[in-house]
Amino acid sequence: MKFSIISTLLTATLAVASPIELKYGNESLNRPLVHFTPNHGWMNDPNGLWYDEKEELWHYYFQYNPNDTVWGLPLYWGHATSKNLTTWDQEKIAIEPLSDDSGAYSGSMVVDYNNTSGFFDNTTDPRQRAVAIWTYNTPDSESQYISYSTDGGYTFTNYDSNPVLTINSTQFRDPKVMWHDETQKWIMVVAKSQQFKIAIYSSPDLKNWTHESDFTQEGYLGFQYECPGLSRFTVPQTNETGFTNSSSTDKWALFISINPGSPQGGSSTQYFLGEFNGTHFTTDHSNTNVIDLGKDYYALQNFFNSPDGSVYGIAWASNWAYCNFVPTDPWRSSASLVRKFTLEEFQANPETSILNIKSTPVIDYDSLNFGETSSYHNETLDTENPINYDLAKNFDGLIEFNLTYRVNNSAFGKADFADLSLYLIGEANSNEYIQLGFEGNAASFFIDRGHSEVPFVQNPLFTDKISVNNQPSQYINSQVSEYKVHGIADRNILELYFNDGSQVSTNTYFFTGGNFIGQVQLEVGIDDVFQIEEFEVRQMTLKI
Amino acid sequence: MKFSIISTLLTATLAVASPIELKYGNESLNRPLVHFTPNHGWMNDPNGLWYDEKEELWHYYFQYNPNDTVWGLPLYWGHATSKNLTTWDQEKIAIEPLSDDSGAYSGSMVVDYNNTSGFFDNTTDPRQRAVAIWTYNTPDSESQYISYSTDGGYTFTNYDSNPVLTINSTQFRDPKVMWHDETQKWIMVVAKSQQFKIAIYSSPDLKNWTHESDFTQEGYLGFQYECPGLSRFTVPQTNETGFTNSSSTDKWALFISINPGSPQGGSSTQYFLGEFNGTHFTTDHSNTNVIDLGKDYYALQNFFNSPDGSVYGIAWASNWAYCNFVPTDPWRSSASLVRKFTLEEFQANPETSILNIKSTPVIDYDSLNFGETSSYHNETLDTENPINYDLAKNFDGLIEFNLTYRVNNSAFGKADFADLSLYLIGEANSNEYIQLGFEGNAASFFIDRGHSEVPFVQNPLFTDKISVNNQPSQYINSQVSEYKVHGIADRNILELYFNDGSQVSTNTYFFTGGNFIGQVQLEVGIDDVFQIEEFEVRQMTLKI
Repeated sequence: MKFSIISTLLTATLAVASPIELKYGNESLNRPLVHFTPNHGWMNDPNGLWYDEKEELWHYYFQYNPNDTVWGLPLYWGHATSKNLTTWDQEKIAIEPLSDDSGAYSGSMVVDYNNTSGFFDNTTDPRQRAVAIWTYNTPDSESQYISYSTDGGYTFTNYDSNPVLTINSTQFRDPKVMWHDETQKWIMVVAKSQQFKIAIYSSPDLKNWTHESDFTQEGYLGFQYECPGLSRFTVPQTNETGFTNSSSTDKWALFISINPGSPQGGSSTQYFLGEFNGTHFTTDHSNTNVIDLGKDYYALQNFFNSPDGSVYGIAWASNWAYCNFVPTDPWRSSASLVRKFTLEEFQANPETSILNIKSTPVIDYDSLNFGETSSYHNETLDTENPINYDLAKNFDGLIEFNLTYRVNNSAFGKADFADLSLYLIGEANSNEYIQLGFEGNAASFFIDRGHSEVPFVQNPLFTDKISVNNQPSQYINSQVSEYKVHGIADRNILELYFNDGSQVSTNTYFFTGGNFIGQVQLEVGIDDVFQIEEFEVRQMTLKI
Repeated sequence: MKFSIISTLLTATLAVASPIELKYGNESLNRPLVHFTPNHGWMNDPNGLWYDEKEELWHYYFQYNPNDTVWGLPLYWGHATSKNLTTWDQEKIAIEPLSDDSGAYSGSMVVDYNNTSGFFDNTTDPRQRAVAIWTYNTPDSESQYISYSTDGGYTFTNYDSNPVLTINSTQFRDPKVMWHDETQKWIMVVAKSQQFKIAIYSSPDLKNWTHESDFTQEGYLGFQYECPGLSRFTVPQTNETGFTNSSSTDKWALFISINPGSPQGGSSTQYFLGEFNGTHFTTDHSNTNVIDLGKDYYALQNFFNSPDGSVYGIAWASNWAYCNFVPTDPWRSSASLVRKFTLEEFQANPETSILNIKSTPVIDYDSLNFGETSSYHNETLDTENPINYDLAKNFDGLIEFNLTYRVNNSAFGKADFADLSLYLIGEANSNEYIQLGFEGNAASFFIDRGHSEVPFVQNPLFTDKISVNNQPSQYINSQVSEYKVHGIADRNILELYFNDGSQVSTNTYFFTGGNFIGQVQLEVGIDDVFQIEEFEVRQMTLKI
């Protein structure tokens, strides 16, 4: 059965005459430009994110199997650095496991400015006193190790009294450590994965840890909890309708990744907002939030520090449901863009606003060159006149678009498929395209990444149709609402930011190697429903 | 763009020579047999479910637009009755709105045995004193109305002092009322939809309601809350590892439907377990549970009463994301099977069991005839030898299967697509099939309903690939786990019960009219991984 399906597909492909030579089996042509990928080998969770204030350099480590393009032991901390958070240089492996049947699993990094650990002397600049806290996984246990670097985060020495924290468990991992000013202590959140607990520990020195509390069985459970994170945010000082517990100016977010069994299928990252008093995290409400509504945003980790004190983070842009089969070679998986996270009031529906984490992509446009820009403003789109842009030929497969549209809810009925559809179409083979857009009766945004001739997309776990609960950016009147979406398509990953990042959906897609997006079409199913306020598309490439 | 896709599809169809005449545009051939559908018109939420102890008759009302096959005003309470919970007789409309621009929206039914309302005298048997509590929706408001029946639930008289509950809101609906023994009061749960609140009211007489509390912002919010329900369960008296708050023998479940913006996309039904003291519902844990992991299970309502005191319920088997476009005519939408709900300890992973609602489908097999039964036991399935059953020709499109399999996790690597795939294939056109199964690396069950030549399945909001967090029914040893799935495919709806109903996924599917499932194939991608303990398939049809 399966083989007959695939052969049907291949036959269909052969029948299409392509002006550009497509590269089946050479999917390396689809390596993203502004999303980090390892040169070769397997990558998963981001680890140890920190910012070196002395060198003004961002460090990003990651779960890394250099010996294969699927997950496997021994597992290392790979390493990359960036000056601009947009382009990354891959560095040498930073942390190695102690044996070939073990792994240097996920963890975090702190800058031990005050040398609480005693690992440093005056030869290491306080701003570079990097200490990694990570899970050492063996066939028998998971325990927490620490390692320190005296060369700015390139090489590490394991503490000689490791582990610093062990509870006789095989499911105890992913420590994320921060400094808590009020108590003058290090705080670790770490997953007791299969107990659905996020344990909170404190320490004066990174070596001795005291158990303070467990955050237990909240939100969506799935199979297990992984990769917790605790971040401090500033509450926006605007009107506070609908808020409670906003008397303090700080608010804390606890992030928990779940896999498998997320509500979207496979892996995803949820978060809770509340208070943290140095020992306990308590939620304001027990509502469950998903930080990214797409299929490819797991194991989010935030940087330990940043130049402006804001919260920045990176996720793994894949999903355990299908990550080992995605058609890239000689590497597998990419990072998300770096995002800046802020708190905002989010109008969840006409009656209620809730506190929400807003995501803003970090792109250093100075490191990019721009190709053609097409733009369109202020017209009602009708069925006879779609907007059709042919982009510059042989460009680089990185495009950005901004689309602002108004929906007139009085102009369609329940029987109308009232869609505004944006097609991102392959230049060399237009049978490969992404369809995304909004449908009035569903009141949802949709993404369909299933139109590809790459056999992988037939994988029944590679959900191709994804929807996003899409709220207006503003209510114009009782019938008309405005929506905004900002998209970045980077060869095989599409990040969509709705209403300036109130909601996000990140999804990989896979076209035949080299079949970059070369045509963009915007069309509607029904007249008089959609007014296009702005539609701008531009091609981009790296300056280098 | 869209039209070219559809025309490609149609061309492909014409190229297939079919032995049976297929009926494009006559999708009525796909009307389910044991899932209720209205004779004609539009249906959504189940309403007013109750059991008449005198007549031994089950009553099921539903949101009904008899004038069209899409949702629209005026909206009525349709009505159906059943002796066996498997086949239903559609009755006359039960409740009408007061004007054509208004709706008799969702609500519930109680049996007022003790005539607390004063609506009845001795001419009405206490077991038939049916009172409906429902939302009257007008362009300006939603308020709660009551109506009573003196003829066993067929016709209703509106109370002359309606509304019985109004709060000056347009978003206040779906009252579900139960009798609370301890306080000797009626308890209503009702949605303040766009405030993400489930309000709890009490009443001595169904006419005068006192606000007791609000259950606010828990679980997954989406756009709004709808269709709450509160049900009492008995805690299983087995070992209680991993439980808390199990000292009482009762446990309460609060059900909340959310739409749009459910985590799976569109509509779904979540629930919380906890305690109810007559005025407040409090959760044991704040974890969010989804009662059915599929795309088509919304607005679940439980029966007011039942002969054995157990909890039985029905959901609407569709999704607001695409319900108005599904290719059936002259009706749209079906009910789920009736399910019996019980509490169980659920082994969520090897370390932790949690309380979980288990779903058991109610099918009266005495009202069915059986066709061919094929069964297979106790063999390791290898890639060269799939199991292939040709079912009896020209049967009725209703099949049931049971599949129990063991997965040897040591027999595949990360690079292997280690699937056990069950194909349910159209008899007249084998290009139409459902693929479902288990993949070892994802450790998930998958369903792909996208292989159909019906143009509707191209709808980008009709998610075709759905996955289910699939836990073993038992751990055989450290490498081998056993899984069970029971499936009922009824012409255009597939209900899957995993591990005797610990998890459920309900999904509609749409083949060309008359192309019933006629072939079943079970195959594996890798040798030595899957041991089939049992695989049995049987065809069924109605006796009548």
